[in-house]
Amino acid sequence: MANSEAESRVRRLRAALDSGRWAPVKRLLASLNPAEVANLLAALPERERNLVWEMVDPADDGQVLLHLPEDVRDGLIRQMDAEELVAAAEELDIDDLADFVDSLPETVTRQVMRALSDADRARLEAVLVHEPDTAGGLMNTDTVTVRPDVSLEVVMRYLRMRGELPAHTDALFVVDRFGVYLGRLPLDRILTREPHQPVAEVMDRDTEALLVDMSDLDVAQEFESSDLVSAPVVGPDHKLVGRITVDDVVDVIRADAEHNLLSMAGVDEDEDLFAPVHLAARRRALWLGINLASAFFAARVVGLFEATIEQVVALAVLMPIVASMGGIAANQIVALMVRGIALGQVGAGNTAALLRKELAVSLINGLLWGLVVAAITSWWFSPTLGLVIGLALLLNLLFAATAGLLVPLLLRRVGLDPALAGSVIVTTITDVMGFFLFLGLGTLILL
Amino acid sequence: MANSEAESRVRRLRAALDSGRWAPVKRLLASLNPAEVANLLAALPERERNLVWEMVDPADDGQVLLHLPEDVRDGLIRQMDAEELVAAAEELDIDDLADFVDSLPETVTRQVMRALSDADRARLEAVLVHEPDTAGGLMNTDTVTVRPDVSLEVVMRYLRMRGELPAHTDALFVVDRFGVYLGRLPLDRILTREPHQPVAEVMDRDTEALLVDMSDLDVAQEFESSDLVSAPVVGPDHKLVGRITVDDVVDVIRADAEHNLLSMAGVDEDEDLFAPVHLAARRRALWLGINLASAFFAARVVGLFEATIEQVVALAVLMPIVASMGGIAANQIVALMVRGIALGQVGAGNTAALLRKELAVSLINGLLWGLVVAAITSWWFSPTLGLVIGLALLLNLLFAATAGLLVPLLLRRVGLDPALAGSVIVTTITDVMGFFLFLGLGTLILL
Repeated sequence: MANSEAESRVRRLRAALDSGRWAPVKRLLASLNPAEVANLLAALPERERNLVWEMVDPADDGQVLLHLPEDVRDGLIRQMDAEELVAAAEELDIDDLADFVDSLPETVTRQVMRALSDADRARLEAVLVHEPDTAGGLMNTDTVTVRPDVSLEVVMRYLRMRGELPAHTDALFVVDRFGVYLGRLPLDRILTREPHQPVAEVMDRDTEALLVDMSDLDVAQEFESSDLVSAPVVGPDHKLVGRITVDDVVDVIRADAEHNLLSMAGVDEDEDLFAPVHLAARRRALWLGINLASAFFAARVVGLFEATIEQVVALAVLMPIVASMGGIAANQIVALMVRGIALGQVGAGNTAALLRKELAVSLINGLLWGLVVAAITSWWFSPTLGLVIGLALLLNLLFAATAGLLVPLLLRRVGLDPALAGSVIVTTITDVMGFFLFLGLGTLILL
Repeated sequence: MANSEAESRVRRLRAALDSGRWAPVKRLLASLNPAEVANLLAALPERERNLVWEMVDPADDGQVLLHLPEDVRDGLIRQMDAEELVAAAEELDIDDLADFVDSLPETVTRQVMRALSDADRARLEAVLVHEPDTAGGLMNTDTVTVRPDVSLEVVMRYLRMRGELPAHTDALFVVDRFGVYLGRLPLDRILTREPHQPVAEVMDRDTEALLVDMSDLDVAQEFESSDLVSAPVVGPDHKLVGRITVDDVVDVIRADAEHNLLSMAGVDEDEDLFAPVHLAARRRALWLGINLASAFFAARVVGLFEATIEQVVALAVLMPIVASMGGIAANQIVALMVRGIALGQVGAGNTAALLRKELAVSLINGLLWGLVVAAITSWWFSPTLGLVIGLALLLNLLFAATAGLLVPLLLRRVGLDPALAGSVIVTTITDVMGFFLFLGLGTLILL
């Protein structure tokens, strides 16, 4: 729910900035890792962010930029000169660099490419050919491989000669002489088995490699369900092309979760807390505009019943209740569906069963709250009006269940994002139906 | 956004179940790991879930139960007899067992405790004394420790004698003879440094240990920002008490994200897709009831202007527009705030700056959409009514910015969950203000 340490850092930084003393700011920055510095920068208004950014150790620039939300990153990159950007890029791993290159101006990208060694440039290009949201886009090419026929002793000698291993190496990969992936050799097995044993006897053959074009969310699911720290990535010919590490997978999970949370409320997940006002306004305007169209559509429906309202003003007083309850009920289901779709738990296989369940839930809540609304309305206005609103509420909750369930699935089917579009479409439906049912029943029963 | 592999498994399973053939069901189950089986079970209606559960390999029962949403887990546990439950519990690691014990009936818990070895029982109790949402509740006690003064060669001899290491061991922990944590000895350093070097020379002293009472979200933040695979946990005396591994941290991140997504829509995050109807209905009823109270409150405000509406029915037709736009704008900000609070990016330090920014964003969008609404309304009804609605919309968006920003912070301050309560409170405010502003201005200007 909250992160108290990060928050107290923001507070301390603000205090230091407000007092105009730079020494404590620098001390604080020096005590943080790049991800923490990034989080701190994202929490500052633009002017102060730029001030603090100047004080970040240039050796960390690349890592800090990488951990920033896209908006903030782009803002800071615009202020850096080519030389600084090239220096920042040089500090990064190849997979991180691949993410970073997209944010750079074209001329700087070319300079960065030139500054790389031939081998690194080839590795960067190998990653850049893949879409960023696939296993290929996530992977790093820094694999350490061994052959199955050598002994653990030979492997240990090789490792000692080689020196430090890439970060998050929990296993070496075993390949044949054509580079085809055969299995993993976990580091702890090298350490706990007898040195004379050949790799083939010790290696783990059960861990399947990920295909290079697998989606990043499937990769995340695979990591989660198999509790992986790193996984091999292979091409269609089953040749090893790279590896994915858990730290990048955690970023995927976090980003997807933020996407779902913010999309449902109609916010772009790249939006920065302190985005420039004109950018934030433009981004949110679209969503407000769509909602305005939906609201005018609902108003048109209300307009059909102007004559009825003129005779029974109480209908106008009560009509928002039916629409709003439908919206709430439908959005509860949309949220469940967005999670269910993300986990691969809903689809053609169980739609009918789910719909039966949700209609039953809505029937119960419709009867319960329909009675409550009817009772209050009877006391406030009249029993007949109570009957009208109770009935309209019950029917609208049944519509809400149907729409909340089917709209996300339909959007999914036609390739749209249920988290982004689901909520607004479903709310339009429940608003329109809410007004139509209540005012329609009112016209029939009261006039 | 979606998980295609998991979905296709659900489809295949349904096809097999529908055809009544068990062999393909068993084959499918045998090819999945416990987490995947759990995901599949959660996607099935209750009756079919119970059928498939019977076919799961009993050796996996514990792990599968552990990966299930709480509702589903409790449902299956109710059907198992004590003997089966004890057998399932015995397959689990101590930290997993600690999560599992809470779901068990008391009598079974006692049986499980008795079935454990003395050492395991002591370790389980050591975990159970901590709150589940702290580092202590997340940790496992299976640490492998070494002393700083021995050589890597001795460490390797010890490891070979010891045999297999606990899952996700990427480093051993270095402690002094009192058990005080000194640093980590990453496995790859054991393999790449010279065997005669003492541990003290090779170990990583930079990684700080996590305190046992740290919140699980702070732990997750620490893992994310430092890209950890495992981390040592120490008591207040700095003695090593356990370690946390990245797989459990991924679960924390996932659970927190789901909590935020579902809470904002008023759904309990434990709610299972196929929860029994009466349970689902009861859980969602509360939220609908709260919303009903809020809607009646808004209706009371509308009721104040009955006389005005009677004279200008167009006000009734248009009034939902102002309220709805305010709700949308406010919820955009609530979603941003929920994320910002989760990341520790908002607090007293930057509230004023954030408020200035959000008011500016609302001013721009209020002017823009206020003009659009005024223009459409002028054409549909009259220019005076256009002026009223445009002005009301602008003002309501400014209220929306203030409420969307301050309500989550206030809730946070008094210890309530901004994701859960924020959305409903803020929507109540924007509905009430929307009706009040529009109908109030209407009364002043039109009558």
